[in-house]
Amino acid sequence: MKLLLIQGANMEYLGRRQPELYGTTTAKELDALLRRQARSLDVVLDILYTNTEGEAVSAIYKADRVNVDGILFNPAGFLHAGHALRDCLKSIRAPAIEIHMTNIEKRGYGSVTTGAAVGMIAGFGVDSYVLALQAMVSRLRQSERS
Amino acid sequence: MKLLLIQGANMEYLGRRQPELYGTTTAKELDALLRRQARSLDVVLDILYTNTEGEAVSAIYKADRVNVDGILFNPAGFLHAGHALRDCLKSIRAPAIEIHMTNIEKRGYGSVTTGAAVGMIAGFGVDSYVLALQAMVSRLRQSERS
Amino acid sequence: MKLLLIQGANMEYLGRRQPELYGTTTAKELDALLRRQARSLDVVLDILYTNTEGEAVSAIYKADRVNVDGILFNPAGFLHAGHALRDCLKSIRAPAIEIHMTNIEKRGYGSVTTGAAVGMIAGFGVDSYVLALQAMVSRLRQSERS
Amino acid sequence: MKLLLIQGANMEYLGRRQPELYGTTTAKELDALLRRQARSLDVVLDILYTNTEGEAVSAIYKADRVNVDGILFNPAGFLHAGHALRDCLKSIRAPAIEIHMTNIEKRGYGSVTTGAAVGMIAGFGVDSYVLALQAMVSRLRQSERS
Amino acid sequence: MKLLLIQGANMEYLGRRQPELYGTTTAKELDALLRRQARSLDVVLDILYTNTEGEAVSAIYKADRVNVDGILFNPAGFLHAGHALRDCLKSIRAPAIEIHMTNIEKRGYGSVTTGAAVGMIAGFGVDSYVLALQAMVSRLRQSERS
Amino acid sequence: MKLLLIQGANMEYLGRRQPELYGTTTAKELDALLRRQARSLDVVLDILYTNTEGEAVSAIYKADRVNVDGILFNPAGFLHAGHALRDCLKSIRAPAIEIHMTNIEKRGYGSVTTGAAVGMIAGFGVDSYVLALQAMVSRLRQSERS
Amino acid sequence: MKLLLIQGANMEYLGRRQPELYGTTTAKELDALLRRQARSLDVVLDILYTNTEGEAVSAIYKADRVNVDGILFNPAGFLHAGHALRDCLKSIRAPAIEIHMTNIEKRGYGSVTTGAAVGMIAGFGVDSYVLALQAMVSRLRQSERS
Amino acid sequence: MKLLLIQGANMEYLGRRQPELYGTTTAKELDALLRRQARSLDVVLDILYTNTEGEAVSAIYKADRVNVDGILFNPAGFLHAGHALRDCLKSIRAPAIEIHMTNIEKRGYGSVTTGAAVGMIAGFGVDSYVLALQAMVSRLRQSERS
Amino acid sequence: MKLLLIQGANMEYLGRRQPELYGTTTAKELDALLRRQARSLDVVLDILYTNTEGEAVSAIYKADRVNVDGILFNPAGFLHAGHALRDCLKSIRAPAIEIHMTNIEKRGYGSVTTGAAVGMIAGFGVDSYVLALQAMVSRLRQSERS
Amino acid sequence: MKLLLIQGANMEYLGRRQPELYGTTTAKELDALLRRQARSLDVVLDILYTNTEGEAVSAIYKADRVNVDGILFNPAGFLHAGHALRDCLKSIRAPAIEIHMTNIEKRGYGSVTTGAAVGMIAGFGVDSYVLALQAMVSRLRQSERS
Amino acid sequence: MKLLLIQGANMEYLGRRQPELYGTTTAKELDALLRRQARSLDVVLDILYTNTEGEAVSAIYKADRVNVDGILFNPAGFLHAGHALRDCLKSIRAPAIEIHMTNIEKRGYGSVTTGAAVGMIAGFGVDSYVLALQAMVSRLRQSERS
Amino acid sequence: MKLLLIQGANMEYLGRRQPELYGTTTAKELDALLRRQARSLDVVLDILYTNTEGEAVSAIYKADRVNVDGILFNPAGFLHAGHALRDCLKSIRAPAIEIHMTNIEKRGYGSVTTGAAVGMIAGFGVDSYVLALQAMVSRLRQSERS
Repeated sequence: MKLLLIQGANMEYLGRRQPELYGTTTAKELDALLRRQARSLDVVLDILYTNTEGEAVSAIYKADRVNVDGILFNPAGFLHAGHALRDCLKSIRAPAIEIHMTNIEKRGYGSVTTGAAVGMIAGFGVDSYVLALQAMVSRLRQSERS
Repeated sequence: MKLLLIQGANMEYLGRRQPELYGTTTAKELDALLRRQARSLDVVLDILYTNTEGEAVSAIYKADRVNVDGILFNPAGFLHAGHALRDCLKSIRAPAIEIHMTNIEKRGYGSVTTGAAVGMIAGFGVDSYVLALQAMVSRLRQSERS
Repeated sequence: MKLLLIQGANMEYLGRRQPELYGTTTAKELDALLRRQARSLDVVLDILYTNTEGEAVSAIYKADRVNVDGILFNPAGFLHAGHALRDCLKSIRAPAIEIHMTNIEKRGYGSVTTGAAVGMIAGFGVDSYVLALQAMVSRLRQSERS
Repeated sequence: MKLLLIQGANMEYLGRRQPELYGTTTAKELDALLRRQARSLDVVLDILYTNTEGEAVSAIYKADRVNVDGILFNPAGFLHAGHALRDCLKSIRAPAIEIHMTNIEKRGYGSVTTGAAVGMIAGFGVDSYVLALQAMVSRLRQSERS
Repeated sequence: MKLLLIQGANMEYLGRRQPELYGTTTAKELDALLRRQARSLDVVLDILYTNTEGEAVSAIYKADRVNVDGILFNPAGFLHAGHALRDCLKSIRAPAIEIHMTNIEKRGYGSVTTGAAVGMIAGFGVDSYVLALQAMVSRLRQSERS
Repeated sequence: MKLLLIQGANMEYLGRRQPELYGTTTAKELDALLRRQARSLDVVLDILYTNTEGEAVSAIYKADRVNVDGILFNPAGFLHAGHALRDCLKSIRAPAIEIHMTNIEKRGYGSVTTGAAVGMIAGFGVDSYVLALQAMVSRLRQSERS
Repeated sequence: MKLLLIQGANMEYLGRRQPELYGTTTAKELDALLRRQARSLDVVLDILYTNTEGEAVSAIYKADRVNVDGILFNPAGFLHAGHALRDCLKSIRAPAIEIHMTNIEKRGYGSVTTGAAVGMIAGFGVDSYVLALQAMVSRLRQSERS
Repeated sequence: MKLLLIQGANMEYLGRRQPELYGTTTAKELDALLRRQARSLDVVLDILYTNTEGEAVSAIYKADRVNVDGILFNPAGFLHAGHALRDCLKSIRAPAIEIHMTNIEKRGYGSVTTGAAVGMIAGFGVDSYVLALQAMVSRLRQSERS
Repeated sequence: MKLLLIQGANMEYLGRRQPELYGTTTAKELDALLRRQARSLDVVLDILYTNTEGEAVSAIYKADRVNVDGILFNPAGFLHAGHALRDCLKSIRAPAIEIHMTNIEKRGYGSVTTGAAVGMIAGFGVDSYVLALQAMVSRLRQSERS
Repeated sequence: MKLLLIQGANMEYLGRRQPELYGTTTAKELDALLRRQARSLDVVLDILYTNTEGEAVSAIYKADRVNVDGILFNPAGFLHAGHALRDCLKSIRAPAIEIHMTNIEKRGYGSVTTGAAVGMIAGFGVDSYVLALQAMVSRLRQSERS
Repeated sequence: MKLLLIQGANMEYLGRRQPELYGTTTAKELDALLRRQARSLDVVLDILYTNTEGEAVSAIYKADRVNVDGILFNPAGFLHAGHALRDCLKSIRAPAIEIHMTNIEKRGYGSVTTGAAVGMIAGFGVDSYVLALQAMVSRLRQSERS
Repeated sequence: MKLLLIQGANMEYLGRRQPELYGTTTAKELDALLRRQARSLDVVLDILYTNTEGEAVSAIYKADRVNVDGILFNPAGFLHAGHALRDCLKSIRAPAIEIHMTNIEKRGYGSVTTGAAVGMIAGFGVDSYVLALQAMVSRLRQSERS
């Protein structure tokens, strides 16, 4: 099972950026944690950090061409105007799960990409990623079985 | 650890109601599944189904008075106008997690209660509940430790 | 043929409430008139007055479980925020007809529940109920035949 | 008792036009059905099909000048911008009832003419006309009596 | 000097229509009054009553082709959706003055045609026409002189 | 003189709920204070706490049937969607005064029920109730005299 | 017959201010022209130029106290936010006519004061004043006669 | 204890202005009544009537410089656009209470100044002032004590 | 292959009307050019100019009854409120292409009829018609082949 | 004659992406088809696929620096938020034509870039490109001649 | 070179008013600082503090009559509804620069006067004035030279 | 002191792009001018032109990692949808100043990034940059001193 995690604009600064909102875990530490969890679930996890929406789009198409099984993505800075990303996620075969570390609704934001995801997990900090990974694996295993 | 799960308006008809959206698992079957999972996590889980927002509010205050540790809730039919429920969740000590079986954003809905929750999980069917239970336990165990 | 009539919030005060809008026929008199007409059409008619949307929702599910053939409802005070009622009407098997004694559009109101009904009759006072009963019977007899 | 039925823009294509919405009864068949019912109710019924709002307006003034007792109208294509028709209906002595074959609210439409009618019947296909005719006769007979 | 007065939808019913708003002067009486005033100002005045916007548009182009000097118009029922009339008035050489018998702003209306007129006179009943005729003649005489 | 005070959704938690907004006086203490003041004004004061809008509506009709002289109400959690409560208050004979402990406008809220009250007092904490009681008595005594 | 003309904010610069919109007639010249016309109509005309809305309001109350017969006013710079002026015009006994030199609708403006006037004349430059004076005198003479 | 009462635009016409809304008590009579009540409460009350928002602002700063204890104000005509007044009230040390004689919400108005007040009293006619005076004194005495 | 071209309101004045926008080609010249092109494509082309939306609607139904193959239409003045035309185009069997001589979006307009067309060509002056004719023929020939 | 075709975000997946909307022609096949047509029209056609708006912008400036004659562009995923692209198209000398394979209006979309194009062609699938190429060549040849 | 600085509503309280936003420099100190800087730039600087928009307008016309070279203005409390001030600035010959001590956009405000200024400087506290003075002098010297 | 200047989308075409708005100074000339001024102020100034928002974001994080002292930025084409840029500017330690060559408000634009800047300077052409550089240096020197 191969998954791709897209970390949208500004995620590279995790740990330094508004820690009262996003905590002090750095991007590097988060990656390590997720890779470890992926291994324990027997999943190959690619991670891409990018500040450019078009790079995210290109990476998703590239992954879809080689039959990625699922996309995890935190739109982050693309949440407000990531319409191209949304259209991309609608165009591929693989399902996608949207992740937010904070409860974006509480902060008055809506995400334009949500409609292209199968589901969304928001508000649990680093745990949002862990839960999303688990949700994706559970979903893929269920559809394999059926 | 004591948790309360509120199943909002129309959830009683789970399994019969628009199965193409909500699946065929009945309310009864969902309850059994969650109670089993709760036991395995060493958690006491109360479940309330109600079509009346005020009953949900009263139940939450009653639980908070006896020191419930967390609230899980699917606002369901209260999603559109459940402002009293939202104010209630803001008034209590215990954290709350909002659950939706479907990706409500995809269906063009927003939920008025989300702002009062610590986080939201949407779009995974029955798994949304399982993930929320897990997220709550993880969150409570972390704050115990800290 | 079994029908359920839901009289929404404030209908209990019919005859006393703004008679320049709703006339002087009381709830009691309306009930008698409708039961008589139901009998003449060979229909069993249950009538529920309630000021609590959740009670309307519960009653409709209860009726649907025992195979009610159709729902007649005047949302009345639920017209503005009865989203749970609307979702309920969408969830059941039986068709529903929305009734208003006044022409609500003329008074600047829209009803959130209309979209869940097969049709709407508004503006004929007590006659709105009589016409709705007739429309429901006609519709059910037609679909029986086909 | 003399009544005028206005069939607004696009009604001439009834039976051929989107039959999944409007059924397969043709304009001709509907007319025959209504004239029969009118006769049985001892009512003279004139019917005008027009795609031009101004013709509907002129016909209504002409009818009002010769003391028509009531107007039945399906605004159809005039529903979106028939403000002149609405003002016309407000200017005459005779009451008007608005008719829709479909539940327009369910389809996301509102009608600008509704505010000028005494009532509205929507969603019952051909039955909407039959119910409206009956509602008008009942209303006129009641006001005769009083 | 040749002028054309367009009386929009529903103006044919002047004197019978909502006399509390529009007074009891009939269309016939208004015409006589205006023709008299036109003669005294040495102006040829054509008057067209129509309930169909397209007829007003056609009449204006016809008049412009034969070099009408100015258009007076009461959009009346076309006030809400007379965009074609507005575009027509923008397309011709002759200036136009918009007339309303009532103060439409006070009644919560705006007119879509106003932007195509050189000016507007509203709220003076029959006097609105008299003032507009005078304003047009004054304007045309001034531009003749310059 | 008989008055009814309705305490809307979430008021039962007064004293525990967001004390930085609502103070530390509990519901019990507030009741005692108001009953004392009522006695000194020679007024019978009934108090109902409810989280269910429909219960508030039913209680008001019941009170109106036995000729309550005035309604005091803090819509609290019903402020956002209490349209049925508003319609109820418009339907009864007795006047109503709306009470808020905080200045809701400052917090960005508007109340849907205000239009059905004779007046509103907001922003004075517990004093809002005391002032409202006094305002009601003054109003009723004045209309008795006149 | 005594009239008061209010020239709102920025009118003092008439003749110098955007002459492509307002022409080159100065405030002084306009005043002379209007006083001459007033004399010929046997009317006493007071004229007040002010940039401060409150001064306009005070002057109108002062005039009303000594029984002014009518108010002519060009709200000019008060057009956008002159709500106090509007409320003032609604509070007095004398009728008011609103004047604009340009067709404000064409320029995309609406005036908040219009609803408090009996009528409005816009778009005729200096002639707007002349027509308004005439309309007021005609109106007052008519009501004297009736 | 020194208080300042600001009577906003159009209040000078109290008693003559729309008495069906504002009653027949004149500004003079209201002042006498309030001064009497102030004396009985041992309060020095200054009263300013002004139609110019800037004068209200200047007076409030002047009062704040000499340590006024509280501001009572009826924004009246400033209710719609009194943003400068609002900013002023936010800038001073003394608390302010907003007063309306009518229930402005019922009339479809909102007040831009409310957010700068500690509270609002609306709908009780002359009593609104009496209650506000009392509320201010109670509030100031309480904060003195604490 | 039979096609119908509808030229909406104000198109009759092509060549005289705002030539800076629409060029100097007259309606007559445009017709000749299109008929020539139609012949060369072996297509029968009917052309209707009308200022009345209802006439366009009637003509389209008449053409559909005799199996027209495609509709070309420039809504022109019907662009803003041609909802009946839009519903008509949705009701017929033949496909329609919308034509604009100017880039309407650039001018801040949207067209209510576009949703009923298979495609739209805008901004190429007379060429818009030529391209649309070609696009229609290409489309019809392709569906013939398939 | 040199032209540049920009294929916006997600166009690289043409043929695989939502074929029910965009057909099964792949990007490669479309390119071949257009290059062939370009050659037959004696035009040099450069084609750029990019998912990054900034790359489109840079390419357009680069082309404009070397005197490209015209830009063809399908904004695709940039349709929703491509304001920089729009500003770029406004800044260059060469004209641009906007292309859509589907009728975007029918799908409820508007394009922010349209205002910077000379025209738009939408709804003809692969033919939209062919028509646009033709329209551009026609336009450039005409302006060469004039 | 003569300049006029307008300090809008509430600026008189600078130094006392919300010092966390506006700092502790008083109006007096700011004036001294600016006059000193003006002298060093060889500029005559007049400064007017006013809480009344009309006074600002009158002062600007007075200055323009005697050929002021430029206007500096902080609309302050006039920012929300200073439409008359905006129209005034559009009417004069001299250019104006708008000044804000805070970044008003960050605080969620827009200024209605900005459109009448040549430029705007916001967010630099006292420095905003210094920069604006410098920008005005630079601009005037440049246009002198050209 | 190290500063970074970001020149957003389309700025590379400065001097060629809409010179009536942006003047004829080229990007190259502007850079030379700013570097000269930076040297005279003893500041190291890096300048980045980019059409891709993500590149701007990456450059800002890179600069922040090596302790840039301040960011100057002209969002240019990112002004409409540069939410990721805005979030980036909120995430870094260094203050940012937003620059516009034109008065964007006058042109009807608002900038989504302004809220993340300490201040904004707009409307002074090339001088906007010079003033911003100066404002930044002044601000940084002041905070050094304090």
